[in-house]
Amino acid sequence: AIAQHAAALFDSGLLAGQRVVITAGPTREALDPVRYISNHSSGRMGFALARAAVDAGARTTLVSGPVQLATPAHVRRVDVESAQQMLDQCLELLPECDIFIACAAVADYRPATFASQKIKKGAERSSLELVRNPDIVATVAASSAAPFTVGFAAETSKLLEYAQAKMENKQLDMIVANDVAGAGIGFNSDENAATVLWPGGSEVLEQASKLNIARRIIALIAKQMKNSSE
Amino acid sequence: AIAQHAAALFDSGLLAGQRVVITAGPTREALDPVRYISNHSSGRMGFALARAAVDAGARTTLVSGPVQLATPAHVRRVDVESAQQMLDQCLELLPECDIFIACAAVADYRPATFASQKIKKGAERSSLELVRNPDIVATVAASSAAPFTVGFAAETSKLLEYAQAKMENKQLDMIVANDVAGAGIGFNSDENAATVLWPGGSEVLEQASKLNIARRIIALIAKQMKNSSE
Repeated sequence: AIAQHAAALFDSGLLAGQRVVITAGPTREALDPVRYISNHSSGRMGFALARAAVDAGARTTLVSGPVQLATPAHVRRVDVESAQQMLDQCLELLPECDIFIACAAVADYRPATFASQKIKKGAERSSLELVRNPDIVATVAASSAAPFTVGFAAETSKLLEYAQAKMENKQLDMIVANDVAGAGIGFNSDENAATVLWPGGSEVLEQASKLNIARRIIALIAKQMKNSSE
Repeated sequence: AIAQHAAALFDSGLLAGQRVVITAGPTREALDPVRYISNHSSGRMGFALARAAVDAGARTTLVSGPVQLATPAHVRRVDVESAQQMLDQCLELLPECDIFIACAAVADYRPATFASQKIKKGAERSSLELVRNPDIVATVAASSAAPFTVGFAAETSKLLEYAQAKMENKQLDMIVANDVAGAGIGFNSDENAATVLWPGGSEVLEQASKLNIARRIIALIAKQMKNSSE
């Protein structure tokens, strides 16, 4: 409790007056009324970031896919299912957003068609046509008057290489690279470890609780925003 | 509490000495280390059946896909992810099973290949090759020394027609038909309504709590087993 209180005091005011929007959790892409494609994201990292942002004095909104988590105190939460719904909500929030953190594990693809009736079992083999989902973080970063935009790269190989390329291609201000293949960290775990990259720098965050990692990411965002405004 | 106690007394001993295996929840079919295909089954109906079976005196095992539910008292629980794992567990339990209730919402198809690394985003359109999953309830019903086998039919249209055909094709002893398109019942709901069919008869179970529906299904199973052994 003392450590938590100390952390709160340390962070207090770092993002005072800033409006933060954070996406969290998986998305679900419906095939029909009962079936969907999704992923193992628990939403814990995004929710930890929301708590850390509130502790740092920010007005914080979570745009969350389906998760089994309580909303942190003082956080506004908007629930969505699909990537398209998540994008729509983020664009609606964009005019009042200074910092955008895209922590959700958004499905890259969705079924090309939605069957309004449950699809009946048929042939031994089948194939599911997929179309690319909108790229939420790239859309936000490319908008006129874009907020300070932070992406996440969850990879199982060539982590830093992919993360660096993703940051450059999508013109992000920062990217958090974490290796979801690591045991004891990442999806559905209470702990995480990551490397944070920004244009011209990086910092390794050793394995710690997701809240601890979240506080350090929030502190790095505050520092980078201060540097780039000077 | 009095009503619950009365129900317990009423059911008590109906399945005394019987060994019941119940599948519950969705299955998850992995595309790669992070993505999967699944469905909206909450597992509540299967877990309610397990509780009702225990109350009726049965030795009860739940083979459950990923759900957010506590295991009912005195129920043995085996957790699985995929349809193939669920089938393997059921076949392992089959030599000691008198009644098999297939309540799980098993994925009809799984991805034809599993990518051990996270699949990278590529073309604007893509397609996912799928192969049929094993049919768990049909496999059990077709086994030599098959238990009394109960299937579920969750449909959004032509409910009784599909359910009757499913019972006949798979040689089931009973099938529970429920309309998952109905508001307030079915997947992720606390209530359910169903029509129970068996060769030569049927009974409509009006909307009620899943535990109430479960108790009535258990009573119908006991009655049918008694009739067919006479």
